[in-house]
Amino acid sequence: MFDYRRTHDCGKLKKSDAGKQVTLSGWVHRRRDHGGVIFIDLRDRYGLTQLVFDPVKQPKAHAEAEKLRSEYVISCRGTVSPRREGMANPKLSTGEIEIFVDELEVLSKAKTPPFSISDEQIEVNEELRLKYRYLDIRRGDVALKLAKRHQLMLATRKYLDEKGFLEVATPILGKSTPEGARDYLVPSRTYPGTFFALPQSPQIFKQLLMVAGMDRYFQIATCFRDEDLRADRQPEFTQIDMEMSFGIPDDLMEIIEGLLKTVFKDCIGLDIPTPFRRLSHAICLEKYGCDRPDLRFGMELIRLDEIARRSTFSVFLDQLKEGGIVKGFVVKGGADISRKSIEEYTEFVGRLGIKGLAWMKRQEGKLSSSIVKFFSEDLQKELMSFMEEGDLLFMVADQTSRVNQGLDHLRRKVARDRNLIPEGRYEFLWVTDFPLFNWNEEENRLASEHHPFTSPNFDDLSLLDTEPLKVRSSGYDIVLNGYEIGGGSQRIHNPELQQKIFECLNLTPDELKTKFGFFIDALSYGTPPHLGIALGLDRILMILTQTDNIRDVIAFPKTQKASDLMLESPSYVAQQQLNELKIALTEDNQLPLNKDAVRN
Amino acid sequence: MFDYRRTHDCGKLKKSDAGKQVTLSGWVHRRRDHGGVIFIDLRDRYGLTQLVFDPVKQPKAHAEAEKLRSEYVISCRGTVSPRREGMANPKLSTGEIEIFVDELEVLSKAKTPPFSISDEQIEVNEELRLKYRYLDIRRGDVALKLAKRHQLMLATRKYLDEKGFLEVATPILGKSTPEGARDYLVPSRTYPGTFFALPQSPQIFKQLLMVAGMDRYFQIATCFRDEDLRADRQPEFTQIDMEMSFGIPDDLMEIIEGLLKTVFKDCIGLDIPTPFRRLSHAICLEKYGCDRPDLRFGMELIRLDEIARRSTFSVFLDQLKEGGIVKGFVVKGGADISRKSIEEYTEFVGRLGIKGLAWMKRQEGKLSSSIVKFFSEDLQKELMSFMEEGDLLFMVADQTSRVNQGLDHLRRKVARDRNLIPEGRYEFLWVTDFPLFNWNEEENRLASEHHPFTSPNFDDLSLLDTEPLKVRSSGYDIVLNGYEIGGGSQRIHNPELQQKIFECLNLTPDELKTKFGFFIDALSYGTPPHLGIALGLDRILMILTQTDNIRDVIAFPKTQKASDLMLESPSYVAQQQLNELKIALTEDNQLPLNKDAVRN
Repeated sequence: MFDYRRTHDCGKLKKSDAGKQVTLSGWVHRRRDHGGVIFIDLRDRYGLTQLVFDPVKQPKAHAEAEKLRSEYVISCRGTVSPRREGMANPKLSTGEIEIFVDELEVLSKAKTPPFSISDEQIEVNEELRLKYRYLDIRRGDVALKLAKRHQLMLATRKYLDEKGFLEVATPILGKSTPEGARDYLVPSRTYPGTFFALPQSPQIFKQLLMVAGMDRYFQIATCFRDEDLRADRQPEFTQIDMEMSFGIPDDLMEIIEGLLKTVFKDCIGLDIPTPFRRLSHAICLEKYGCDRPDLRFGMELIRLDEIARRSTFSVFLDQLKEGGIVKGFVVKGGADISRKSIEEYTEFVGRLGIKGLAWMKRQEGKLSSSIVKFFSEDLQKELMSFMEEGDLLFMVADQTSRVNQGLDHLRRKVARDRNLIPEGRYEFLWVTDFPLFNWNEEENRLASEHHPFTSPNFDDLSLLDTEPLKVRSSGYDIVLNGYEIGGGSQRIHNPELQQKIFECLNLTPDELKTKFGFFIDALSYGTPPHLGIALGLDRILMILTQTDNIRDVIAFPKTQKASDLMLESPSYVAQQQLNELKIALTEDNQLPLNKDAVRN
Repeated sequence: MFDYRRTHDCGKLKKSDAGKQVTLSGWVHRRRDHGGVIFIDLRDRYGLTQLVFDPVKQPKAHAEAEKLRSEYVISCRGTVSPRREGMANPKLSTGEIEIFVDELEVLSKAKTPPFSISDEQIEVNEELRLKYRYLDIRRGDVALKLAKRHQLMLATRKYLDEKGFLEVATPILGKSTPEGARDYLVPSRTYPGTFFALPQSPQIFKQLLMVAGMDRYFQIATCFRDEDLRADRQPEFTQIDMEMSFGIPDDLMEIIEGLLKTVFKDCIGLDIPTPFRRLSHAICLEKYGCDRPDLRFGMELIRLDEIARRSTFSVFLDQLKEGGIVKGFVVKGGADISRKSIEEYTEFVGRLGIKGLAWMKRQEGKLSSSIVKFFSEDLQKELMSFMEEGDLLFMVADQTSRVNQGLDHLRRKVARDRNLIPEGRYEFLWVTDFPLFNWNEEENRLASEHHPFTSPNFDDLSLLDTEPLKVRSSGYDIVLNGYEIGGGSQRIHNPELQQKIFECLNLTPDELKTKFGFFIDALSYGTPPHLGIALGLDRILMILTQTDNIRDVIAFPKTQKASDLMLESPSYVAQQQLNELKIALTEDNQLPLNKDAVRN
């Protein structure tokens, strides 16, 4: 049998290797016939190498080469030769050489693929890419991202190991505690009628590891949520999950900053400055209208309540009377924004429930706008103090949350439209001092802003009974370029306080006992102060590899409807399997009895 | 608030630190009152440090210390002091010092634990250990094993990265293809009536990654089997899973030998010699009666057919006539084994279906036994040639498989009973040349010895149609101290051959299409020769940490009936959850409608 073991991969050979006898194996990327001589670009994950088949010197190999088609897997032996003057290809790492082939062996033939592997320019329909994922990966772009994913995971593990964190695997077969998202369930065969749930996060386990005295834990953890998927979500996702004892948020933030510094250096060779900025939740809302501001560009929001109050513009005055606010932001040089564009922006914020978008331009030393007349000279001067010549000011009046949401979206849209976002810039931010609770309108009760294990800020403990919505938490989020890439908190380590928080959340004593009884019990055997964080690995990788599609950074992703087009999964199973689990399909999902494994 | 952040952990301080002001935090391990002075052993994962509370110098701290109970979590500030002459504790890394405490703060009180944390000698009932796993880990033994697990995983990842392998995560929500073990199923909500399955291994995915050109893949992969558990199995287990292209078994074996060398060095500081021994499956059966021989001790099996045939011992002759065999092994110095022990060994093999255990002792230059008379002088001489003075020979006659099984078990039992297994010895072995198929009596068809993707040995291809049971595979197992710690094979990379093997296994064209159609299709787009292996991480760790209990090397294991005693999982779920999945419980598993989350 032909010995197909490679002496070199397809990205390795240089001019200095000229004269060497080599064995290369890989895929036929392209074939060109030039007046008798056949050229093959041989491809593997590492690169491309040009093979030359000469009909005179090696007629047998040449005859074999004539039969080659795209994506055949071949192995060949030959001699490295420098390319002729002027024929080098500077785009290839092997562009200075070619291989004169003596012997050729076809290891596998290939059917014509459903889309081109060699032409990366061609846009391929995503359904087809997912169905033939193994060919999609072969095209190279996803493979590069998977290699980065490997690098990121390895760098993370090395760094956290150096910091004394132990990676501990927690169970995938967990318990259903339906808080927030929907669980994936797994029927138990040994206890019929009961179910495991796939974990939405290792939260309970990592805190138990702190109770257990493990001191510093981490895990690159697979988590699951059975939700109707947004474009950037997957039913299975990955988080870098950490927990540590006897620390405070400053300690953890320093470790995470070091981690991200290492990861960015290892993965894209970039030095990111640390420490990261920190802003309170309240300031983020005030200045950017959201709790995950993109700091790569300016246009901070300006509070205009006082100016509006002194104007005669009834739209603003009416909103202020109803408890609303007026805010705006300045677009540098925005005086060039056309009426038509402004109308489009007005429609844009309209879709977010905002009825009007006011604006003023500062041109030739004064303000122009249809609403200028409602503002006195003095007020106009005050407004102009925010602007330079040629700037535009957008203004919105409405209830606080709507103003913030509308201006946040508008700010980001204007930044994109006007190319204000610098390429290759990474702006990290810690957001702190979140409220502990928010108000769940539907269920008419308090809900946790993060999760029920988050510690209240001890300075606000006295407000728990009287004004719970004013209690700040000791939670923190980490934001990168406007994306939340992680979040965590100091945890409650006192069982009485934990019980109290559950009560604030309106859990009945029964629910509390069933769902979290064992956990409160665990806290009462001597629990260290502890805190932790979870970073969204998929999201970080998307930013590092500059894609908006989460499926690009996962080897075998699911569709937005949570199916695997390649495996054709989920699929029907045999009735026997359901019988063993003592479950049945309801209604029109009944399978014909005794019919095996029919595909939907 | 007291600043509980530590300057040192409890295993760190030495004599050279004397005079330093330190802050330590941890658990109260033991408390001793010595004439007013209180001594506390403070514990964390890293060690124990002795705290001293002096009633005269620090009355406030001393008064606080009087209230301390076992497992309270405390933080204290004080001064490092060398212990008095003769009071050092050489068993502790901090045994030369103690801390004179100035300030003490209780961070958490603790209820009396259900079992002692500080007394490791006390055997604790395993159910209790699992229910209070966080306290069991705090006792230290499991924590040490989890730390080794972390080390093993990290060493594995670093090594494989250096060898060019990329870690790629494959889906947990996979497809049910019930071959071999039973799948855990996950009902799909978005496609009611269909199911995902948790993967029994990433086999299909890793081969697809080779088709995708990823070249070298690995993964520390969680796998699942819904089986009635043997003592050393868990429903979730972990394997080091690898696959590589354009290689042959020699290449992979070298990599695995290097991996295990690294892991053993990193985890227990041991240099293991490489390369490992290799034995064919046939020789293993012949010499040890099994395909995973323990090579830490001798007592190889001896074939005695020819001697038996020339004897007049009818028991042997009858078995030979019926196609059976006669084999035995020599116990060095075994002449001291009593009649009573021999009777017990006879019962032992009897439980394995073997009717008699023959034996001969060589004493004073001749053989003694009740069956010696059936063997001529010449035959006795031949038998004695296997033995030295004082040895014993065990002999068994029966059908081949029964003889092998019986002698394998007996050989290992005798080795244990006579302490023939050297401590700290690690004997690795590659077993090769397995048969490709075995015969499934129940279903009256060929079954794969490993799995259907294993390549036949190309030298035996011509036997596929005529004598399939004689076809050797290109599979290989790796055995350590009598345990199979991994297995793999060269894979089939030719779609026609893959199809043919499925046909040999009696898959109908329909089954083939539904279960593996997409895979055979994938192979036909240009597949490189590839091969791989999966190592049982849990098993390797059990050997490294010298435990027979797989639950000792897993943070939160399940019971043998696949339940989590701590979480009380699996559990009943809300009817609403089942409704969303459009499944129902059958028969007496029906939940009362609208009744939420009742525990079983």
